[in-house]
Amino acid sequence: MINIAVLGYGTIGSGVVEVLKTNGDSIRKRAGDEINIKYILDIREFPGDPIMDILVHDVNIILDDPEVKIVVEVMGGINPAYSFAKQALLKGKSVITSNKEMVAKHGAELLDIAKARELNFLFEASVGGGIPIIRPLNNSLTADEIVEITGILNGTTNYILTKMGDEGIAFEDALKEAQDLGYAERDPTADVDGHDACRKIAILSSLAYGMQVDFEDIYTEGISDITDVDIIYAKALNARIKLFASSIREDDKNVYAMVAPMMIRANHPLYSVNDVFNGIYVRGNVIGDVMFYGSGAGKLPTASAVVADVVDAAKHLNRNIWTIWSSKKLELIDIDLVKHRFFVRVTKKAETLADIKKLFSDVEELPEVIKDEIAFITPLITEKEMKDKKEHIKGLKGSIRIRF
Amino acid sequence: MINIAVLGYGTIGSGVVEVLKTNGDSIRKRAGDEINIKYILDIREFPGDPIMDILVHDVNIILDDPEVKIVVEVMGGINPAYSFAKQALLKGKSVITSNKEMVAKHGAELLDIAKARELNFLFEASVGGGIPIIRPLNNSLTADEIVEITGILNGTTNYILTKMGDEGIAFEDALKEAQDLGYAERDPTADVDGHDACRKIAILSSLAYGMQVDFEDIYTEGISDITDVDIIYAKALNARIKLFASSIREDDKNVYAMVAPMMIRANHPLYSVNDVFNGIYVRGNVIGDVMFYGSGAGKLPTASAVVADVVDAAKHLNRNIWTIWSSKKLELIDIDLVKHRFFVRVTKKAETLADIKKLFSDVEELPEVIKDEIAFITPLITEKEMKDKKEHIKGLKGSIRIRF
Repeated sequence: MINIAVLGYGTIGSGVVEVLKTNGDSIRKRAGDEINIKYILDIREFPGDPIMDILVHDVNIILDDPEVKIVVEVMGGINPAYSFAKQALLKGKSVITSNKEMVAKHGAELLDIAKARELNFLFEASVGGGIPIIRPLNNSLTADEIVEITGILNGTTNYILTKMGDEGIAFEDALKEAQDLGYAERDPTADVDGHDACRKIAILSSLAYGMQVDFEDIYTEGISDITDVDIIYAKALNARIKLFASSIREDDKNVYAMVAPMMIRANHPLYSVNDVFNGIYVRGNVIGDVMFYGSGAGKLPTASAVVADVVDAAKHLNRNIWTIWSSKKLELIDIDLVKHRFFVRVTKKAETLADIKKLFSDVEELPEVIKDEIAFITPLITEKEMKDKKEHIKGLKGSIRIRF
Repeated sequence: MINIAVLGYGTIGSGVVEVLKTNGDSIRKRAGDEINIKYILDIREFPGDPIMDILVHDVNIILDDPEVKIVVEVMGGINPAYSFAKQALLKGKSVITSNKEMVAKHGAELLDIAKARELNFLFEASVGGGIPIIRPLNNSLTADEIVEITGILNGTTNYILTKMGDEGIAFEDALKEAQDLGYAERDPTADVDGHDACRKIAILSSLAYGMQVDFEDIYTEGISDITDVDIIYAKALNARIKLFASSIREDDKNVYAMVAPMMIRANHPLYSVNDVFNGIYVRGNVIGDVMFYGSGAGKLPTASAVVADVVDAAKHLNRNIWTIWSSKKLELIDIDLVKHRFFVRVTKKAETLADIKKLFSDVEELPEVIKDEIAFITPLITEKEMKDKKEHIKGLKGSIRIRF
């Protein structure tokens, strides 16, 4: 029997309890031993819930119990989660977490501590909810040099953009609907402004390239400036607008990463990733393109990923599972140097197509779906060039937030 | 340094050599040690090829060399591959293979031998080419009871069906094109008749359910009866015809498996898996739906999966990676009891819609895209019921090969 402790009895914590109960038999077969929850830590009480028997309020009871071999941190936030996770590792316990903030910020350090002690620090649930992506990147795509990771990594924004696309409703209404359904938080900033996706692409990039990618370095835009007019244009092109989190390795010295809305056509592998689903597309230099798809959030899918990590840690007690993520910092290239095509709208009153063609060597003009408006896609130009040219577009409408 | 031997210097074997050479540095980082090819076995000579220095014609040189820790079998076929793989394991070497025939037939036995000796028998490349699916099923989806696996597992037939759909050409012409491009063998029987997909779904099912699924038990139909008229109907429905390999666990005692063409609509997760790509959709009882997508064949993607297995074996020398696939046979339920909806075409001269409605309680009539023809989708009925009713359809056109 392998004893574990669960820190936090919220949505994911209660999901972990439920998964271990529902699938106990098959999990024992997979892990080679029974997984027993010895403690659950929470500051709250849960009168009437059977977990009351194992509920504790003091983390030291868990940290000081040598019988606990694996600690599952599903509290979220940096404090006190980071302190608890670090102490657990220092006390000889493997740590499993779903906490993307903590992994993005302290992952390299916690992995180092685990490595030095033949323990494990695992975080499959921190990116893509239930989708297996951390373990495949770490253990399956090992024959490849990863050259690109592009993901739809935030279910809330994907739900909002899907609703806007399907029903033609405004951003605010779609957000309200997502909140009513429990997909979006009361304060949706972390999702809507791209911060959540930013942390996730930082984790995937660090793991793929073997160096620390600081999330603060990643250029991040959200979706709050996307309007129903943008959606109308996307539809006319049979395209969709998605919030992409990408990192691209042009060579060993040139990696860039960004989170920003993109307009993609039907032939893109992530085109069909809709609603709250996530999809992660990985390109390797020998394997070519692979794609992973599934529920990016939700109690049980996320708990499934957490428990799969518990099984892996149980199979690797006293033996570290190798990762190449080191604490050496990867310097990303300046986003100003990165090239994209941009979707631009101008009013005909202020601008003619001839003016535009003078400014950009070559443009793809879009069908006139809004009266008195010219819309076009620029040629491939750097972010810096676009910023400069923007100043010279007289009749600019909306923001230039959508790459193509 | 970890010494390996490669059995067979064909397409995949030469791909393995190329991948280890191209990505040697990053593979060493991932494996924690250098991977060195000490021998390549082939009956042929390769004058001028640098591998001549390590080419041997006698497998015993490899089997008797205690320095060889990992044997990579990429010869294909059952004999002598199976004998070589078994002997290698018995001599204390881990075995990696891309050989789906051997894994489907002898996987349970070879896994048992490996387990008893703390060695590994790994076969990621046997299903889905480069797509990580064996390792995710084995190591990632461990918190779930798998209730369904449905895959497009054969790139050749998917290419043929995509061509027929996109260009409206006949089966024979699409097959010819696939052969000219090297996607289909001169003798395409194994692909076209579904035998290749059958072996692959047998492997995935055995691994997911933990018992031996014999490929001979799996009901298998191919695509050679699909006509351009079927494609026209599919298009009218905004649907596509795909060769599906499925296994579905209704409960512990009721598992069925089949390979057969299906007509699927745009909301199906495998709808966008076209050309030679493969896609595998897995449903677990807690994770919900996940999908894996990528190149299902090809020299480098397949070699990437083989080398990833080599890395895993190198990280687990003298330590077995647990699988639940046991040699205990899983009895599949009789396919006659399985329910589907069927796509049926009849000539108006022989049959009226009233006749059809008498025969089937309820049908979904399709738009008349072929003159003087009635086409419809049956309600959900068992395979047995469909066989019986088929005798009473007077004006039947084409075969009833397409489920919906």
